[in-house]
Amino acid sequence: MDSSQFREAAYSAIDESNFTLNYHHPMLFEKIVQYYDTLTERPVLPSISPGYLKPLLPPGPPSEGEPWPQIQADIEKLIQPGLTHWQHPKYMAFFPANASYPGIIGEMYSSTFTAAAFNWICSPAITELETIVLDWIAKMIALPECFLSDSPGGGGGIIQGTASEVIVTAVVAARERMVRKLLTSSGFDPTSHETEEALDLAATIRGKLVALGGEHAHSSTQKAAIIAGTRFRTVPAPQSSNFAVTASALRSTIEACKAKGLEPYYFTATLGSTATCAVDDLEGIAAVARDYPDIWIHVDAAYAGSALICDEYQHLTPPMQHFASFNFNLHKWLLVNFDCSAFYVQCRKDLTDTFSITPAYLRNSYTESGLVTDYRDWQIPLGRRFRSLKVWFVLRTYGVEGLKRFIRGGIKLGEYFNGLLDSRKDLFTVVTPAAFALTTFQVKPESSSTSEEEKKKEEANRLTKAAFEIVDKKQEFFLTSTVVNGVYIIRLVSANERAEEKYVKQVFEALVAAAEEKERR
Amino acid sequence: MDSSQFREAAYSAIDESNFTLNYHHPMLFEKIVQYYDTLTERPVLPSISPGYLKPLLPPGPPSEGEPWPQIQADIEKLIQPGLTHWQHPKYMAFFPANASYPGIIGEMYSSTFTAAAFNWICSPAITELETIVLDWIAKMIALPECFLSDSPGGGGGIIQGTASEVIVTAVVAARERMVRKLLTSSGFDPTSHETEEALDLAATIRGKLVALGGEHAHSSTQKAAIIAGTRFRTVPAPQSSNFAVTASALRSTIEACKAKGLEPYYFTATLGSTATCAVDDLEGIAAVARDYPDIWIHVDAAYAGSALICDEYQHLTPPMQHFASFNFNLHKWLLVNFDCSAFYVQCRKDLTDTFSITPAYLRNSYTESGLVTDYRDWQIPLGRRFRSLKVWFVLRTYGVEGLKRFIRGGIKLGEYFNGLLDSRKDLFTVVTPAAFALTTFQVKPESSSTSEEEKKKEEANRLTKAAFEIVDKKQEFFLTSTVVNGVYIIRLVSANERAEEKYVKQVFEALVAAAEEKERR
Repeated sequence: MDSSQFREAAYSAIDESNFTLNYHHPMLFEKIVQYYDTLTERPVLPSISPGYLKPLLPPGPPSEGEPWPQIQADIEKLIQPGLTHWQHPKYMAFFPANASYPGIIGEMYSSTFTAAAFNWICSPAITELETIVLDWIAKMIALPECFLSDSPGGGGGIIQGTASEVIVTAVVAARERMVRKLLTSSGFDPTSHETEEALDLAATIRGKLVALGGEHAHSSTQKAAIIAGTRFRTVPAPQSSNFAVTASALRSTIEACKAKGLEPYYFTATLGSTATCAVDDLEGIAAVARDYPDIWIHVDAAYAGSALICDEYQHLTPPMQHFASFNFNLHKWLLVNFDCSAFYVQCRKDLTDTFSITPAYLRNSYTESGLVTDYRDWQIPLGRRFRSLKVWFVLRTYGVEGLKRFIRGGIKLGEYFNGLLDSRKDLFTVVTPAAFALTTFQVKPESSSTSEEEKKKEEANRLTKAAFEIVDKKQEFFLTSTVVNGVYIIRLVSANERAEEKYVKQVFEALVAAAEEKERR
Repeated sequence: MDSSQFREAAYSAIDESNFTLNYHHPMLFEKIVQYYDTLTERPVLPSISPGYLKPLLPPGPPSEGEPWPQIQADIEKLIQPGLTHWQHPKYMAFFPANASYPGIIGEMYSSTFTAAAFNWICSPAITELETIVLDWIAKMIALPECFLSDSPGGGGGIIQGTASEVIVTAVVAARERMVRKLLTSSGFDPTSHETEEALDLAATIRGKLVALGGEHAHSSTQKAAIIAGTRFRTVPAPQSSNFAVTASALRSTIEACKAKGLEPYYFTATLGSTATCAVDDLEGIAAVARDYPDIWIHVDAAYAGSALICDEYQHLTPPMQHFASFNFNLHKWLLVNFDCSAFYVQCRKDLTDTFSITPAYLRNSYTESGLVTDYRDWQIPLGRRFRSLKVWFVLRTYGVEGLKRFIRGGIKLGEYFNGLLDSRKDLFTVVTPAAFALTTFQVKPESSSTSEEEKKKEEANRLTKAAFEIVDKKQEFFLTSTVVNGVYIIRLVSANERAEEKYVKQVFEALVAAAEEKERR
């Protein structure tokens, strides 16, 4: 859907009448199509300082209402200067958070049909479309059938806001599943364990539980363990395993925990880590899962999961059948506007057993019939937005083939950038080659600088940081750097809809200049 | 902002060019303005059955993209029949979830400026506008100054999705604040309590913690206690105290917990309970708060909080200065589209001490300068949407006086309905008089039916349920019923933007007919 198609679509979403518009000061107005059409002419990063906005706004809202043109003028004047443009082709930081025109129209309709859709009768279409599009997506990414809503084991998908919210949901459900299991094995009836004795035992059990996450799993697992009030341990993922968790690393961490009297109950396996897009050894971990069936293994594919729509990545999905849950964010790479994380479980009862509370004011004949899904019992908050609409619009507007072309375009750009780095082996070391469009690299010290290994590492870190800071300070591109196992790396991923080879070339030239500047010192 | 103003505003939000539109099949298209303009002609509730949508959709997304008109036609054909219309004047269930035109435009712009705004540099305007509008709102509702972002004690506000999410955030922060305190008093340094000994003690402490909520507090407090992995106890709120928690009830619950060796760490006080809009004895509870300063007291004003913009309700806010936190949902009564819950704390450090984790890839010079707010450390998820934009648009479009008029209109309708019930004392008993536009009532048994008190209660419950079911089955109005302390009540609140006296009169007549139908049996 291009600008003029969006214009027609969005106009038609507002009204069907034929009309002519007149504005007194059109140049003051910020328009959506115009915003996107002029995006490449704007700097990707704002040049304001912290606290820029407060002095520009009155101390409170107006007493009487203001006309829209006055409000709209302030968007361009006050808000635009403070925006970081994630859809800008020079945005190459973190991961993309891609917007699209059909995604925007989805949000328009979703906000029009506003409902706090916490159960089926609150707006049946909201629940039903969500179940359907999540089944579509599960099939698109070749997720094992046990995750479909009509699977015999009672699996299914739900849209939550973000991967971090999903992980809290999984961690808490995993914790309570383990508590119920251990209570049962101690002779308590887990459906009525509200005696003081059972509560004391449950508390003792929780006190020994430990959540695990790979060394390079996203920090949200550690945060989820804090929220769940349990311990957290890291599973090593050294550079020698390309920053991925191996089966043996997971197994020895589990055994070390058990040797200390702790009970591992949860593990986040990562498909595309934040720092380097590493993929944990999913097949090996599946074998560990079979040996420890009470540990809830969740696969976090927040960013890279979108690539699973392409056949060439679908060899990654068969091991999922051995894991309890899986998620990826359609709002990262799959052109659905933020927020939209698809969360799949093999056993939805694992969620409802923990999160379902039905006070009198939420009872209704549909819920009691058991024929409907009340998604509130699959998540932390009660209310929910109509997020499936934007997903439906995006899937239908691009089509599966269109989305594959988009993903493959990003992957190709990553390979192009990796190739540019390889063309200057005198200046750069690729630390992790292009994976899911992300490449990480270092600036190489002069070979003569030192022969000592440790000193060389320090020098590479120092030079890389210095080069990053030169580029970062100029604010022409938005990149991120990080440190993995003591290695300072620059991360580069260019995978939004406006990404193009020429911008990747430009950022490479900026990096060469920065690296050479350091070389000369 | 009326339909034609929204049309002009929304068109102008999309493009500034003058144009004429032509559609081949305009009647197939569902339009936003048209949706609202024809809302009253539609039934408030859908008449489809569970599972209606799946047979109407293909088994998967299309291979190649479809043109917009084809997608848009399906909104009217497939989605509309499955919607419950929360903006319909015959929607009088639960609480309102009010939408408004400026709210919709806010979501349009928010999705246009898509960013996963987890820290300041991710898009500074998103953070800064949020801080500013939350200060505006705190002043509008006369919240004590300790909740402002520039208060000496370091308070402030954040927008989260829903009250239930806010309550999980408060409960977990409260739990960890208590754990840190008790670790410190046992001689551990809470900033570095990662030794096994400290972790064991922390687990033992958590095992004795108990969260409290009023008997009629929203179920989200109980759910939050489950998520936090701690016990939960209810504080009685009987009909004799108008279903509100009194200071003495809270005090004796706290003391009963302590007598059992449990440690109360959190309490939700309610300003406008879900069932009856009861207000707990906030002044009395403030005195309890002074005696138990380590218990985190949160005030949940999810629905009724919007009324605090009116001077005549602001006598309720001074006790807040004794409580740790407060929230209300602008998406319920204040015309900001779902989701938007304003959450205020007196001490933001209580949040960041629990939720802040900064891995290498999230470090940046702005965060490290300490001059900026990174709201991710005040909440459970990492990423966040640009929600303050719709708040800003709504506040400016209506103005404070316009919003007050709207709130007072709802309150007046509630009183009108209460008056109608009073005019038929032969048929109805008002259980809780109009409070924040909500009235709850019962159908009255014939006076001769029985003289036994218990039997009379049963008969009133039976008749009320029967009358509710008659009205509910006809689906002309959407109402909810619930049970409080064994009393079956019908709840009625008509407080959306299309609410009018005539609809309240109509629902009253439907209730009279239903009650009389039962009388005759």
